[in-house]
Amino acid sequence: MFEVKATDLAGRIGRLRTKSGTIETPALLPVIHPIHQQVPVRELSNIGFKAVMTNAYITMKHYGDTAAEIDIHRIIDFDGVVMTDSGGYQVLEYGDIAVDPVDMAKFEESISTDIAITLDTPTTKDASRMHAQKTVRSTIQAAKETLLNVSRHDILWTGPIQGGAHIDLVRSSARKMSKLGFDIFALGSPTEIMKAYDFTLLTQMIYAAKKNIPLSKPLHLFGAGHPLTLPLAVALGCDLFDSASYMLYAKDGRYMTEYGTVRLDNLSFFPCSCPICSTHTVKELLSYELYEGRIKLATHNLYQLHREVETIKQVTREGRLWSYVGMKARAHPGLWEAYIHMGKYIDLLEDGTPSFKSRGAFFFTSPDHFHPDSIRHTVRLRNVTIPKKRRIMIVIPEDNVKPFYSSPIYTTLTELLGDYLENVQFFFLSSPFGLVPVEVSDIYPLSQYESSPSFIADPQVSKDLIDRTVSFLEKNKKSRSIILIKRDGYIEVIKKISRRLEGTTVLDWKDDCQSARKILEAVQKLLGFNR
Amino acid sequence: MFEVKATDLAGRIGRLRTKSGTIETPALLPVIHPIHQQVPVRELSNIGFKAVMTNAYITMKHYGDTAAEIDIHRIIDFDGVVMTDSGGYQVLEYGDIAVDPVDMAKFEESISTDIAITLDTPTTKDASRMHAQKTVRSTIQAAKETLLNVSRHDILWTGPIQGGAHIDLVRSSARKMSKLGFDIFALGSPTEIMKAYDFTLLTQMIYAAKKNIPLSKPLHLFGAGHPLTLPLAVALGCDLFDSASYMLYAKDGRYMTEYGTVRLDNLSFFPCSCPICSTHTVKELLSYELYEGRIKLATHNLYQLHREVETIKQVTREGRLWSYVGMKARAHPGLWEAYIHMGKYIDLLEDGTPSFKSRGAFFFTSPDHFHPDSIRHTVRLRNVTIPKKRRIMIVIPEDNVKPFYSSPIYTTLTELLGDYLENVQFFFLSSPFGLVPVEVSDIYPLSQYESSPSFIADPQVSKDLIDRTVSFLEKNKKSRSIILIKRDGYIEVIKKISRRLEGTTVLDWKDDCQSARKILEAVQKLLGFNR
Repeated sequence: MFEVKATDLAGRIGRLRTKSGTIETPALLPVIHPIHQQVPVRELSNIGFKAVMTNAYITMKHYGDTAAEIDIHRIIDFDGVVMTDSGGYQVLEYGDIAVDPVDMAKFEESISTDIAITLDTPTTKDASRMHAQKTVRSTIQAAKETLLNVSRHDILWTGPIQGGAHIDLVRSSARKMSKLGFDIFALGSPTEIMKAYDFTLLTQMIYAAKKNIPLSKPLHLFGAGHPLTLPLAVALGCDLFDSASYMLYAKDGRYMTEYGTVRLDNLSFFPCSCPICSTHTVKELLSYELYEGRIKLATHNLYQLHREVETIKQVTREGRLWSYVGMKARAHPGLWEAYIHMGKYIDLLEDGTPSFKSRGAFFFTSPDHFHPDSIRHTVRLRNVTIPKKRRIMIVIPEDNVKPFYSSPIYTTLTELLGDYLENVQFFFLSSPFGLVPVEVSDIYPLSQYESSPSFIADPQVSKDLIDRTVSFLEKNKKSRSIILIKRDGYIEVIKKISRRLEGTTVLDWKDDCQSARKILEAVQKLLGFNR
Repeated sequence: MFEVKATDLAGRIGRLRTKSGTIETPALLPVIHPIHQQVPVRELSNIGFKAVMTNAYITMKHYGDTAAEIDIHRIIDFDGVVMTDSGGYQVLEYGDIAVDPVDMAKFEESISTDIAITLDTPTTKDASRMHAQKTVRSTIQAAKETLLNVSRHDILWTGPIQGGAHIDLVRSSARKMSKLGFDIFALGSPTEIMKAYDFTLLTQMIYAAKKNIPLSKPLHLFGAGHPLTLPLAVALGCDLFDSASYMLYAKDGRYMTEYGTVRLDNLSFFPCSCPICSTHTVKELLSYELYEGRIKLATHNLYQLHREVETIKQVTREGRLWSYVGMKARAHPGLWEAYIHMGKYIDLLEDGTPSFKSRGAFFFTSPDHFHPDSIRHTVRLRNVTIPKKRRIMIVIPEDNVKPFYSSPIYTTLTELLGDYLENVQFFFLSSPFGLVPVEVSDIYPLSQYESSPSFIADPQVSKDLIDRTVSFLEKNKKSRSIILIKRDGYIEVIKKISRRLEGTTVLDWKDDCQSARKILEAVQKLLGFNR
């Protein structure tokens, strides 16, 4: 039913099979009003949306029992995949509404929806712990009753996870929902949290949900149509989204761009080449009367959202989701904070990060040393064992020439050392990976990366690198000698390492024969072959 | 002839008047082959390009004297603005070619070009100093001879600046060219440097040129069609660009995206909604035969370049160019390095940065403390004078509530201090701006900014902040007392400040009456009113 085709971080490209066809994930389902839809649903298909979300509660209120004879696909005039929300949001907006969860589920079955959600009680952003607990309990209770009474198994049933800002409640809610046998899980109520730019809290909520549902099931994020949030949410493992943002923003005169939203009346140029923007001037778009202008703006917003989702899929496929999330995170300090926070979830991110990619990783500043590639290899390299006869460890700061064994410094030294080579273990000191034994230096990604000089100059990065290097050398120095090579960009780092280890030999490297000869002499001396 | 409409950093939105019409800058002029153009020039107009660059040398070779009877606009079938390159690139490609600069200029006049370039000798990337000097001299010599002999003053004449990686030569070349009376200046030979991802060198070159030509004249950057470089180049003050990248990339099967280029055969999804991408699938685009597929790909690339330029104009207009350049810089470590480097050119960047913007500044990590808003206000605040009777300086770490004078901590304290107020000077300690006297705390941008918690946690940022604060307080503490308030996020910073100043009083703030009363008592004591 759900098949994962490619992954990067916790993000994945998947295929979700429903009775009305298969959709590719991550997917954003635009919210369609079952009665008063303004942008024609056909336009949504044209843009590329293969699935939509609509509201079963409003449909029931409007059509009553007659809806069952029509089928939701005909009501909204859409051939693709339809997901129906069961009214939880209405509960939130209008207080307790008199709907029985089982009745609602039966109605969803009767209108032949493809993906149904059991009736939930959303946790509001500022809900007290007690109130949040109540929403979690009632959502789980409704889910249990519903699943006992469903009769159509060609519909995919979605289990809502509530708890809001109370992370432990999200966790237990996800665990309990997992046991009920849902096809899809959905994390509730992030909209208000996103509006407050509290993306770190959102990150914590997604992590709590994701770690407590089966990895094989898709995770839906309710109401997440803030375009800048999508890359982060996908990287954390969300597969499905629904949102009315395209229309809500348009009603408010807001135009979505790749770097945020701009009020249409503050727009001088179109940062977009969608069919709306490439056939209008800003003035023309502003001159439409209210209703028509709003639809044009909403249509642009839909193109922008579609482009964002496609871009996320493409970068996931290329294995550069980490960099892309970081790029988008520079659109708002709140997102940047969440990006840094995301780096802490290595247990979640590492599994999906492919061991081999067609392109190398980039390292810019300290958050990047949380990059799963970096952490994974740091851990692996920590446990490398060195053959006994290698009584000297030589540490060479990283080279622009990669793989490292083809760098001039290494080839010069190996030639010169001749027979002494078998007693020497060479390491390259790599700012993202730490000590890389020369023998493995061509294994992906140890030679397939680029870091900016400011990366190693970053105090947090260099501190970590020094700590890890010292601890590895300390562990392995018994009956071994250490030679540290000083070279540009690494003068301070090498100095600090040598200060923390007893009896190291520090030598300069100036790309000349003199430097090489001094290293040879040091090796001879340390091995006991004094001239 | 050139009029600036809006600025941000050294970037500007301008209007350049030519005899064939006015173009808006920054503008990228796609390079058109005068004989074998593949993407129809009409298509370029449709996409939105109002000006193109073509080659006078090739035109002369092909048409000879007959070209003069036809006019370049008719030869390339384009009604807009035509700029002609005079063959410098051909010199580079095929060695010395036998063209006299004055003959070439007369030919450019005869074909009625709108913007002409005097014949230059490009400096190659790895040119020795001596060779570079030769290219600069011959370019200046050709420029002098040409300007003495031009007869059409309805054509805008462009003076090429050479020198390549030899920054002092770029500087002197720009100075000498400036004296010759050109309408436009053009910086030569960045293409190879961009190919090597040496964007820091490019930044230095642009700075050297920009600082030595009149601010009132447009600066053109030759051959700069790498889409990720455009935001940086505009921020540094480049107004015009020309490039054949759309076609060169397409010939190489490379598809431009907002985050870099991707080989078409590595593309699974279109991160674009241009008329090409929104009417094709990736498979379809790949299935075209070579020639047609290449034109489609080149057309997409043109849409992407156009969108990039429009986006840059929009963010310049909004005053968020700094953030946007930073966002794009995360596409490659080389760009990130250049972004950090750019921050050092405050003398260039500050003038254009408006003193008032409709939106606040964002602060993420250390490069952002080079933000012109930050530096400008840091400098201004350094020279604030404090009234004599204010014998106590109270430093309060920044608050989320802005302007600061409406923050709870400040309103509580002012109420409590009553008559003592006139003896107290309040400062808010703002991570981007330093000590902000409460009286000016509502002046833009002192209350219109957002910084992420990791900004103040950045060692470089906090070090700078501490240094500046200590030096200001030191300067003003004579016959005054200092009270430092400790609060979350600023515990370490306040500790470090107090350690470096003698006799400060450090007090906690816990958002309660107790804390406020302790501050009152300290004020009373310091003023000599002991209870």
